[in-house]
Amino acid sequence: MKYDVAIIGSGVGGYPAGSYLAGKGLKVAVIEKHLIGGECTNYGCVPSKALYQFAEAVKTIEKINGVAEYKWSELIEWAKGVVKESREGISYLLESKGVDLYNGVALIESNKRVKIKNSAELKEIEADKLIVATGTDPGDIPVARFDGSGIISNREALYLDDKPESMLIIGGGVVGVELANVFSAFKVDVTIVELLDHILPFTDRDIALAVKTHLSQRGVRIIEKTTVGRLEKASGKYHAELSNGEKLEVDKVLVAVGRKPNTRGIGLENLGVELDSKGFIKVSERMETSTQGVFATGDVVGGPLLAHKAILESIIAGRVISGEEAPRLDYKLVPITIFTGLEVASVGYTEKELQSMGLKYVKYRIPLYYLSSVKIKGGKNAFAKIILDERGGRVLGIHIVAPNASEVVSAYIPLYIGKMNLKDAAQVPYPHLTVSESLRDFAEYILGEPVHLLKK
Amino acid sequence: MKYDVAIIGSGVGGYPAGSYLAGKGLKVAVIEKHLIGGECTNYGCVPSKALYQFAEAVKTIEKINGVAEYKWSELIEWAKGVVKESREGISYLLESKGVDLYNGVALIESNKRVKIKNSAELKEIEADKLIVATGTDPGDIPVARFDGSGIISNREALYLDDKPESMLIIGGGVVGVELANVFSAFKVDVTIVELLDHILPFTDRDIALAVKTHLSQRGVRIIEKTTVGRLEKASGKYHAELSNGEKLEVDKVLVAVGRKPNTRGIGLENLGVELDSKGFIKVSERMETSTQGVFATGDVVGGPLLAHKAILESIIAGRVISGEEAPRLDYKLVPITIFTGLEVASVGYTEKELQSMGLKYVKYRIPLYYLSSVKIKGGKNAFAKIILDERGGRVLGIHIVAPNASEVVSAYIPLYIGKMNLKDAAQVPYPHLTVSESLRDFAEYILGEPVHLLKK
Repeated sequence: MKYDVAIIGSGVGGYPAGSYLAGKGLKVAVIEKHLIGGECTNYGCVPSKALYQFAEAVKTIEKINGVAEYKWSELIEWAKGVVKESREGISYLLESKGVDLYNGVALIESNKRVKIKNSAELKEIEADKLIVATGTDPGDIPVARFDGSGIISNREALYLDDKPESMLIIGGGVVGVELANVFSAFKVDVTIVELLDHILPFTDRDIALAVKTHLSQRGVRIIEKTTVGRLEKASGKYHAELSNGEKLEVDKVLVAVGRKPNTRGIGLENLGVELDSKGFIKVSERMETSTQGVFATGDVVGGPLLAHKAILESIIAGRVISGEEAPRLDYKLVPITIFTGLEVASVGYTEKELQSMGLKYVKYRIPLYYLSSVKIKGGKNAFAKIILDERGGRVLGIHIVAPNASEVVSAYIPLYIGKMNLKDAAQVPYPHLTVSESLRDFAEYILGEPVHLLKK
Repeated sequence: MKYDVAIIGSGVGGYPAGSYLAGKGLKVAVIEKHLIGGECTNYGCVPSKALYQFAEAVKTIEKINGVAEYKWSELIEWAKGVVKESREGISYLLESKGVDLYNGVALIESNKRVKIKNSAELKEIEADKLIVATGTDPGDIPVARFDGSGIISNREALYLDDKPESMLIIGGGVVGVELANVFSAFKVDVTIVELLDHILPFTDRDIALAVKTHLSQRGVRIIEKTTVGRLEKASGKYHAELSNGEKLEVDKVLVAVGRKPNTRGIGLENLGVELDSKGFIKVSERMETSTQGVFATGDVVGGPLLAHKAILESIIAGRVISGEEAPRLDYKLVPITIFTGLEVASVGYTEKELQSMGLKYVKYRIPLYYLSSVKIKGGKNAFAKIILDERGGRVLGIHIVAPNASEVVSAYIPLYIGKMNLKDAAQVPYPHLTVSESLRDFAEYILGEPVHLLKK
């Protein structure tokens, strides 16, 4: 078969380009070695947010001393059902647009030819253009190698047949804290061990501290500046010895220390596609690799490993390939979202980043507990932070730490991209009893006369 | 005592102006006859959304055949606690800014003089300017007069000592459907009787139908084009006879048919302040009444009886009084929000309104169940609708029917106010696994090549 475009990987880096190009009338093949939808749909965002939504409901019931009774197996079955429905939604979308879906491992033979191998057969297709969207795999570390049952990644953690009593999470990044939040709500005794100074090391300390306080109140133990020195399995338990001398005995060890790009064994070497020092594929703003006609998108090109970043890159590749004007993706505009009850959503720069670049800035910070919506949903340490440039003009960073922050940040984004200014925001009747209405109050606060807040 | 400004009513129509003006250094009195914060804080948004948040958590637990066990008394106590904290937050804010709070009934003697009477004493204050923000009271109807125990308004319904087994709600407007949603989650057998063609009669039929379907699935019975002909109390129950001949026996009857302005008994007649035909105070864009120096804000001036509309009006009055530039409030920009699990949030015009004005328009409508966030939170009949003018240029209306719509609409608002266009929205990496990301997809859909949706 001959295609205009062959896309390797059906995850959020791959299928949007497939959908776009097929919609434009191009003949498109999407090759998937495992499950349609990739990591996000099957082992990431979707099952994790399903468990998250349930976890938050459990915490709400408990807030008034209630008890939520449910079967673990029904919870996992429900999450699986949501994942299946999401996966089938993507298949239906692609098939409706006329995309050919291939199940198998892709081996790139040249920039025009791809072999697809699965247990049943070996096929070969031709394509004018290739998009490599093979994503990343969870990474482990020497002291804790995945064993498929007890030392696990997100992939197993989201589908555990039985609820563990205790869990050690190695790594206090986004995956680590999100799953700590979820499992602690399910009464799993969770300990996070983080190598660096504080959990969520990529962000500012005040944000990390708010999340740490929140998780600690939910019963998560967080040990920072610490590593796991030894890890052994004995009588069905994992025995960990930490660098601070402490010993832990747990049922499961979740390793969430980062991810590694899937660039091996797919024939990239046949094309001479350049990789960066960490093995991610190097691409231009147009998502083109160093090899003409070969594009790469999503996690496999590095940057923030977030679904919405992958989707935008995939759309850009689609537009470039179909010869249309393609937007340039501002990677600082990609919101970093952390779903931890007290959620975090950030666009733009952190203070840490600005300081490391030697840039001066003005910081405004308001507590958000004044909002009745936050009183209801919980979050005494909720806050929002807006960072302006030295002259108080351009918005350099927006950080929201509050329930529902993942939705709320989208209302703040027009400030960051310069489509709205503070005065505009101060005049909008954002709906009451939401967290979004903080935007009007925050704008008033910076401008000088907030009606719901005291001035600095 | 002599003040620059005296404000009658400490609700969302009153206190923001008080906060603003005191912040500007004016001497301000706020007079409250009942509880600081008024209807919204004490009997409206705050307790209602507290119960709502809990109700949604109960439904989430039940989604996987779980059971939420809790004590009704603890639920009500918790809601009372949230209300108390909100109320105290407003008092603290006003007192910190130096506002004098008076507890008592205000009687306006002239546009410069107000008497304040409470059980303990009678005071008199002078003020250069007055703001009347006395709000509204729930209205009843001849067949169902409030009796303080069984035939009730929102005020009693949100604080019931015991959970009723059954409830008749007269009126399928916002209050009626929101409380039907909440009480049905608490296993109260709820029937809504609506006089007009469909519940939520002010909005489009497709929106009302989605909410109706959702509520019906939750067990609420909805009877439209029907009235209550007779209502009698016998042996502790209320017996209702409907215009369709049906008979109902219920524990409680919630009358939610509308609200009446509090313009009597406060001395407005002494000033000659003009009222409209429904008794609401007539005001200019600057929130001035027909009497010089006398302003009115919030529910008492009519229009959409929504907290965020009242807040903006209050800020406008504050700015006008302090001699500053004041924004003009576009009343069509005031989002109408309905918190019913499957929430509704609308800005701009409905189709119904445009049709009645004889205006042509182009309508776009996308189902939102394609979003994994909606699959997780529930809402098979979720959708979004954007209405453009005839030439497809200006956004005339935005209607979101989905979980979290009340937050999501704030991300869509820049489209309505013309600060962002569809192309801008199509290029923003709105975060994944939210409902807000529908904005990018919807923009792409209208522009022609949606990657997550099929084209029309």
